[in-house]
Amino acid sequence: MSQPVCAIVGAGEGLGRALAARFSGAGFSIGLVSRTETGSAAAFEAAAAAGTRESVRFVAADASQPETIERALANIAGELGEIDLLIYNARREFTACEPLEMTYAALEDSYRVEVVGAFAAAKSVLPAMRERGHGSIFFSSATAAFRGSATYPLYAIGKFGLRALSQSLCKAYSRDGVHIVHFRLDCDLDVPVMRELYGDRYDPEKLADPADVAEAYWLAYQQPKSAWSNEVELRPHTEAWTC
Amino acid sequence: MSQPVCAIVGAGEGLGRALAARFSGAGFSIGLVSRTETGSAAAFEAAAAAGTRESVRFVAADASQPETIERALANIAGELGEIDLLIYNARREFTACEPLEMTYAALEDSYRVEVVGAFAAAKSVLPAMRERGHGSIFFSSATAAFRGSATYPLYAIGKFGLRALSQSLCKAYSRDGVHIVHFRLDCDLDVPVMRELYGDRYDPEKLADPADVAEAYWLAYQQPKSAWSNEVELRPHTEAWTC
Amino acid sequence: MSQPVCAIVGAGEGLGRALAARFSGAGFSIGLVSRTETGSAAAFEAAAAAGTRESVRFVAADASQPETIERALANIAGELGEIDLLIYNARREFTACEPLEMTYAALEDSYRVEVVGAFAAAKSVLPAMRERGHGSIFFSSATAAFRGSATYPLYAIGKFGLRALSQSLCKAYSRDGVHIVHFRLDCDLDVPVMRELYGDRYDPEKLADPADVAEAYWLAYQQPKSAWSNEVELRPHTEAWTC
Amino acid sequence: MSQPVCAIVGAGEGLGRALAARFSGAGFSIGLVSRTETGSAAAFEAAAAAGTRESVRFVAADASQPETIERALANIAGELGEIDLLIYNARREFTACEPLEMTYAALEDSYRVEVVGAFAAAKSVLPAMRERGHGSIFFSSATAAFRGSATYPLYAIGKFGLRALSQSLCKAYSRDGVHIVHFRLDCDLDVPVMRELYGDRYDPEKLADPADVAEAYWLAYQQPKSAWSNEVELRPHTEAWTC
Repeated sequence: MSQPVCAIVGAGEGLGRALAARFSGAGFSIGLVSRTETGSAAAFEAAAAAGTRESVRFVAADASQPETIERALANIAGELGEIDLLIYNARREFTACEPLEMTYAALEDSYRVEVVGAFAAAKSVLPAMRERGHGSIFFSSATAAFRGSATYPLYAIGKFGLRALSQSLCKAYSRDGVHIVHFRLDCDLDVPVMRELYGDRYDPEKLADPADVAEAYWLAYQQPKSAWSNEVELRPHTEAWTC
Repeated sequence: MSQPVCAIVGAGEGLGRALAARFSGAGFSIGLVSRTETGSAAAFEAAAAAGTRESVRFVAADASQPETIERALANIAGELGEIDLLIYNARREFTACEPLEMTYAALEDSYRVEVVGAFAAAKSVLPAMRERGHGSIFFSSATAAFRGSATYPLYAIGKFGLRALSQSLCKAYSRDGVHIVHFRLDCDLDVPVMRELYGDRYDPEKLADPADVAEAYWLAYQQPKSAWSNEVELRPHTEAWTC
Repeated sequence: MSQPVCAIVGAGEGLGRALAARFSGAGFSIGLVSRTETGSAAAFEAAAAAGTRESVRFVAADASQPETIERALANIAGELGEIDLLIYNARREFTACEPLEMTYAALEDSYRVEVVGAFAAAKSVLPAMRERGHGSIFFSSATAAFRGSATYPLYAIGKFGLRALSQSLCKAYSRDGVHIVHFRLDCDLDVPVMRELYGDRYDPEKLADPADVAEAYWLAYQQPKSAWSNEVELRPHTEAWTC
Repeated sequence: MSQPVCAIVGAGEGLGRALAARFSGAGFSIGLVSRTETGSAAAFEAAAAAGTRESVRFVAADASQPETIERALANIAGELGEIDLLIYNARREFTACEPLEMTYAALEDSYRVEVVGAFAAAKSVLPAMRERGHGSIFFSSATAAFRGSATYPLYAIGKFGLRALSQSLCKAYSRDGVHIVHFRLDCDLDVPVMRELYGDRYDPEKLADPADVAEAYWLAYQQPKSAWSNEVELRPHTEAWTC
C-alpha cells in the first residue's frame, strides 16, 4: 500500500473530523481511534468522503488505558502500513471546578488521558519512525499548557504535562528525523458543543474554524526538516492574546 | 501554643534539613513529614538544635499516597497548632532515562509524588488558611518545570504539573490571603548525594548552598501581601542560566 | 498588474535571496530594499530566475533611517501595486562584545535598525492592509529575542524590542485581517558568512538551509485567518533547544 | 564613611520615595538622581526622616542623556563612598497610543530612558563592584517587559529592551559577585497619580503599596549569593495574573 498513513487518536466530531477530512483529501489512509465507533462516525464519514472509504479504518481504544492505545496503533499499522503521521487529539471532557474541588481520582484520570495516553501513542510509532528516519507526531494542546487556572485546574495540569512530554520527545528524537509538534490552540473551536455553550454570545468570528486548524496542521506537516517548529500556536485573528 | 508552625513534607538531609533549621531558628514549631523517621533524622536534629526539641515533631507519610499526607498534616496541626507555612519538598529519586524507556508505572508514580501529593498537602492546610485570611504554601521545584528533557523526562513532566498546580492555586486562593510560591531551583544543591555524583568535578562555587536556599525561602516568607512573588527562581551567582 | 506583491527589506545573499526566490516562484512580484544595489544583487537574480525579471524591483534605503524605508516601500507599491506581504529582514552586522563594551552610539544604532526601521516598514504598509482587510507582515528574528546574552548583548536588546513591536502590532491590528508574525530562527543559517565563521566545524546538518526557512515563511503565509500563528519558531531537526 | 550607599536614579514621589525611606531606615546613605531637585524632594525628605539628613544627597541628571547619569553617579560615589546598591527607577511618563501613532522620536526617546540610561547607570557602578566582588543593581520594570501592548506599545518596547539588558548584564557579571535583578511590577502602584487616574474605581486592595514593594526590594537585597533571583515578580494578592 503506497498511500501515506495518518492515525488520529481522539477522532470526534470537531477537530478530529476536520483532520480526518484534510489528510484524507491529501491522499492519506486514515486510522481513527476513539472509545466507541459512534464517537468516530462523523470523522469516518468525512474521511471517506474526502478520499476513499477503503482507506479509512476505525479501531476502538481507551486513551486512559495505554495498552489499548498500543494495540490500536499496531492494528492500524498492520492494516494500512507504517504510520507517517500520528495526531494525538484525545482529551477528557473538561468540567469547571475550583482547585480544592479536584478529587485525587480526577487528577489521575486526567493525567492518564493527557500524558500517559499521549506517551503510549508516541511510543507505539516512534521506533519505526526513528528506523526509517522520518515521521511526524502532533499533539493537540491549548493555552492551558502555559498557565494555571482557577477554574479549569485539571485541564491546565494535564496540558502542562503534555507539553513537557512533547518537549522531552523532541529533544531526544528530533535528531532521528521525527517531527514532534505541540499545537497550542489559543481559542475555542467553532464546534457543536461550543455553539451550545456560548448560546446567545456565539460569534463564529471569535472562534477557530476546525477546518482552518486542520489546514494549519497540514502546513506544519510540510515544514522541511532544517526549519521545523516544535511548538505551534494557533489563534483566530480576532483573539486578544497574551503570551 | 503561640509559636508559628511550619510543616515540611519531604524533610531529608539536604534542603529539608536546612529549612527545618532556618525556620526553627526563627521561632517556628516544626512538623516534619517523611516516609521514615530515619529519613527525617538529620532535619529533626537540626531543628532541635536551632530551636527547642519540644517544638519539633515527626510524622510518617508516603507522598505517593495522598491520604497519608492529609493525616500527617492534620496530626501536626493537632499537636502544634494551625500550620502557618507548608513547604512541599518531596520528590522521587530521579534516575536518568531516555523518554522511550519510561514505564507507565513510573509516569504515574512520579506524578503521584510531584502533583497529587503536593495537592493533598495544599488541600490539608488551605481551608484553615483561607478562613484565617493568611498562610503560606511553598513548593520546591526546579528549572525542569520550564523545559522538557531528553534525559530526565519523568522529572520534567512532574515539575511542569507541579507548576500548573501552584499557579492554579495562586489564581484561586491568593485573594484570600494565602501566599503560594513555586520555587524554581536553577542549579544542583551542595548536598552529600551531589558531592558523590560530581566526584572530581565537585565545585561548591557552582552549587547552591542549602542554607542559602533556606534563607531565600525565609525572605520570601516575609514579603508583604501587596508585593508577593508567586514564582521565585534561585541560582548561584556562578550559574550561566537561560530563561 | 494582477500579481501579488512581496516586499523584502534587507534582501542580502542569505535568507533574503531565498525568500525572493521562493515568493517569486510562487507568482509574486518582488520589491527588494537594501542599502546598495550590490547588496541585493543575488536576491534580484534569484527572484528573476524563479519568476520573471519584469516583476522584480530594487529600491535603495537605509534601515537606520526610517524615512528612507517609507519612501522605498511607497515606491514599490507605486510600481508593483499594493504590498500583500512585507518581510522585514534587516539587521546590523553583529559583532561580539561584552555588555560593558557597548557604546551608547552602538546601542542606538542597533535599535534604529531592529525596531525603528521595522516599525517604519510596518507603518508604510499597514494602513492599506487594514483598509483592504488583509495583508501579512513578517519579521525575521531570532532566539536572541527570548534571552539576554553575555556576548551579543546588542543583538539581544534589539531583538527583544522587535518582538515587543511585533506583539504590539498583532494585538492592535490582527483583528483588521493583517497577519503579523515574529519568526524566531533558533539556529545559524547555512549561508556563506557562516561557512567561513565555522571553518573546520562547518556541518550543514547543524544549520538551517535558507531555502527551508523560506519554505516555512511560505507555509506561514498560507495559514487561514482563524488559525494564525503570531510567533513562529524554526530550527533544524538537529538542534538541542531550550524554550 | 562606613555606611553602605544606595543610589536611586528616578527618585520621584511614588516608588522612589518608598525606596529612599526603606534603605535609609536600614542604615544606608542615599544618593538621589532626578531631573530636578523638586522631583526628588519627597524622596529626600523621606530618606532624611528615616535616617539622617547628612547622609542624603541629591544630584540632577537627565536619564535620556547617559553622560549626565555617569557624572551624577560618580558625584554620589565621590561624596558618599562606593555605591553598594544601584536602583534604576527612571521611566518616561507613559501616555496611551496605538502603535501606528508612535513617532520615531518617541520610540527613540523612550528607549534612551528605558535602556540607554539604565545601561549608563549600570556602567557607572559595575567596574568598582566587580573589583570589590560584590554589589547590587536593581532595575524597576513591569509586566510590560513580557508582552506587547495595543495601547502602550512604547512602554512595552522599552521594558522588553530593559529586560534584555538586565539578563545580558547578569550573564556577564553575576559570576563577579554582582547581583542584578529585573523587578517585574505586575500591577499599578498606590501612588497619587494612580489615585487620580482611577477616580471612582480606586481600590487600594487592587494596587501595590509602594512601601511593600520597597520591602520586597530590601528582601531581595539580602539574598545570599548562592541563591539569587535575577528576575523577581511582584503583585498584590488580589491580582489575577497571567504568566
